[in-house]
Amino acid sequence: MKLGPTLDRLVDALKRLPGIGPRSAQRIAFHLLQHDRNGAVALGQALLAAADGIRHCARCNTLTEEEICATCANPRRDAGLLCVVETPADQLMIEQSLAYAGLYFVLLGRLSPLDGIGPREIQMERLLARAADGLVREVIVATSFTPEGDATAHYIAELLRARDAQLKITRLARGVPVGAELEYTDVNTIAQAMLDRRAA
Amino acid sequence: MKLGPTLDRLVDALKRLPGIGPRSAQRIAFHLLQHDRNGAVALGQALLAAADGIRHCARCNTLTEEEICATCANPRRDAGLLCVVETPADQLMIEQSLAYAGLYFVLLGRLSPLDGIGPREIQMERLLARAADGLVREVIVATSFTPEGDATAHYIAELLRARDAQLKITRLARGVPVGAELEYTDVNTIAQAMLDRRAA
Repeated sequence: MKLGPTLDRLVDALKRLPGIGPRSAQRIAFHLLQHDRNGAVALGQALLAAADGIRHCARCNTLTEEEICATCANPRRDAGLLCVVETPADQLMIEQSLAYAGLYFVLLGRLSPLDGIGPREIQMERLLARAADGLVREVIVATSFTPEGDATAHYIAELLRARDAQLKITRLARGVPVGAELEYTDVNTIAQAMLDRRAA
Repeated sequence: MKLGPTLDRLVDALKRLPGIGPRSAQRIAFHLLQHDRNGAVALGQALLAAADGIRHCARCNTLTEEEICATCANPRRDAGLLCVVETPADQLMIEQSLAYAGLYFVLLGRLSPLDGIGPREIQMERLLARAADGLVREVIVATSFTPEGDATAHYIAELLRARDAQLKITRLARGVPVGAELEYTDVNTIAQAMLDRRAA
């Protein structure tokens, strides 16, 4: 059965979404057209508005509708703390933890030489300039605990240290997740938690 | 972190899609804005075009951009066979099986009294009129093999038979799926396949 060009185009566009395969794309398209046309219109308009209106914060790179994002513009945030994350999604997770009240710098990636992502792509120069604003006293490098994230963190720490030996540079603690049972925690995590054990 | 009204609106609209939870909606929104703005625009436009341009075939109810869908308008389909399905997605599956060359009637639902879906909602009168066009000699009731689908099939068969005792009325065969091993097939399916066993 030919679905027709308009429906084919919708299914193709849905397939481009991460985690949506051909079967899901078709199911979503049929659902919207049969049961939720208002939802289709709302999503269509929201996508066009977002693609048009959302840009990167001139200060920290996160996604925002303003020149400077609400976090960077908030005078109650501690300008002495700068947390470096890979993505806006990572930043959002840290915000939701309610454990941090400083500012951010979003790399929009991580070092990955094989994919052609080097220091320029993660805007190292901008980060170095940002950290040297005279207010930042500690940089928390919160990249992922993956090989690439670790390499990125190492590289950032080296460069920051070379520019300013006084700057405090930290990473998030590695260890057993809150609420996890040891039996179901992977051994690398347990090894790291053992190495980084702290006074009770 | 406030995501801002435009991004919040996008995440909310994505959450309305079937199978997309809050976490996936956020992940998709970030992905589109960081890595695939063209994809966001393409999907936005495709959704608006589909919501505006796709309607139901005046003859069989399936989704189409024309007054009469390509299947109904195809003179090479066998007008003596009418296959009754619940949804356009079910119709598509049958088309993809390449095992059927007749026409369709899409109920756009199935009887479900508790949800207020009765004979009128599945357009029984239109189906009865459609089956009485003088060309249809067999109606294949291809509703789901669920309690509601079975009830719908039973109801449709009774009404068709009452109007025209000559009409041949069939259902799809129930049995062990092609490629399935008995060990992993549910016992109800095996029981049905045993009852409906056929000469080898």
